[in-house]
Amino acid sequence: MTDPIRPTDADAISLAQDLLAKARWASLGTLGDDGHPMVTRIGFACLAGTLVSLVSDLSAHSTALRRDARCALMVGEVAARGDPLNQPRLSLKARAQFISRDSAEHGEMAALYLSDHPKARLYIGFTDFSFLRFDILSAALNGGFGKAYLLTREDLARSP
Amino acid sequence: MTDPIRPTDADAISLAQDLLAKARWASLGTLGDDGHPMVTRIGFACLAGTLVSLVSDLSAHSTALRRDARCALMVGEVAARGDPLNQPRLSLKARAQFISRDSAEHGEMAALYLSDHPKARLYIGFTDFSFLRFDILSAALNGGFGKAYLLTREDLARSP
Repeated sequence: MTDPIRPTDADAISLAQDLLAKARWASLGTLGDDGHPMVTRIGFACLAGTLVSLVSDLSAHSTALRRDARCALMVGEVAARGDPLNQPRLSLKARAQFISRDSAEHGEMAALYLSDHPKARLYIGFTDFSFLRFDILSAALNGGFGKAYLLTREDLARSP
Repeated sequence: MTDPIRPTDADAISLAQDLLAKARWASLGTLGDDGHPMVTRIGFACLAGTLVSLVSDLSAHSTALRRDARCALMVGEVAARGDPLNQPRLSLKARAQFISRDSAEHGEMAALYLSDHPKARLYIGFTDFSFLRFDILSAALNGGFGKAYLLTREDLARSP
């Protein structure tokens, strides 16, 4: 069987970084209490290289991540035109870390997040909303038909 | 803590069924060989009530599903306008079953799938592409802010 994975090059890294930088939403993969996967939608931002989301404590994904931090993200939404299977998307394996509301990190995230997600102003102050930081473990880029790449955390952090 | 889940009513069932019927793409959650969740994009169709996808054997999700059939699907893409966190989406827990290329079921699926996905004509005949059937275990509908419902397999199969 042919290896479908191409060698990672500068174009692949640039495309992956661009998908992360532009993403405002993500499909989040978590593990339910029975170990079964779940997929839900979250708000998402890449703030000065840090991947974050703002989530409700009442959501199933928050419950799942407080039990098991292992998660996955897919960014790169379906565009209005063209074939979505030929449109680029980035799948990440990550670990999620809840950020304490009392920390300096929370305050910094809130300011940056609101610049990307002005509508989050409606609930960012609610005590049952928390910031998550995602620490990347590895990534798989699908740049369209026949354009599959595996990227490391270091690839995604590389300067252009 | 307030229970965020509303009682399932006819409107919720109708919205969930509509999301499934109209979906052409899905975010698929699977389990990697290390048990870590993954999320990838797949083509999707609800054909006469049966949920199917056409996937490449070379893909990471095919490898994962041949090892562990437990999976998740999210349908309801981000729309061009409005707040995607307030747009309806349906998250399913399911089990994936590969359909033998030699079966009658494969032939029926191929004909129906092509009517929804005419571009799949390019690769539907490739020997390394397989149909998956998803058997629903349960569903979570997020109809927008404050509109969360848990649905059963029977709810989704109910006649209007």
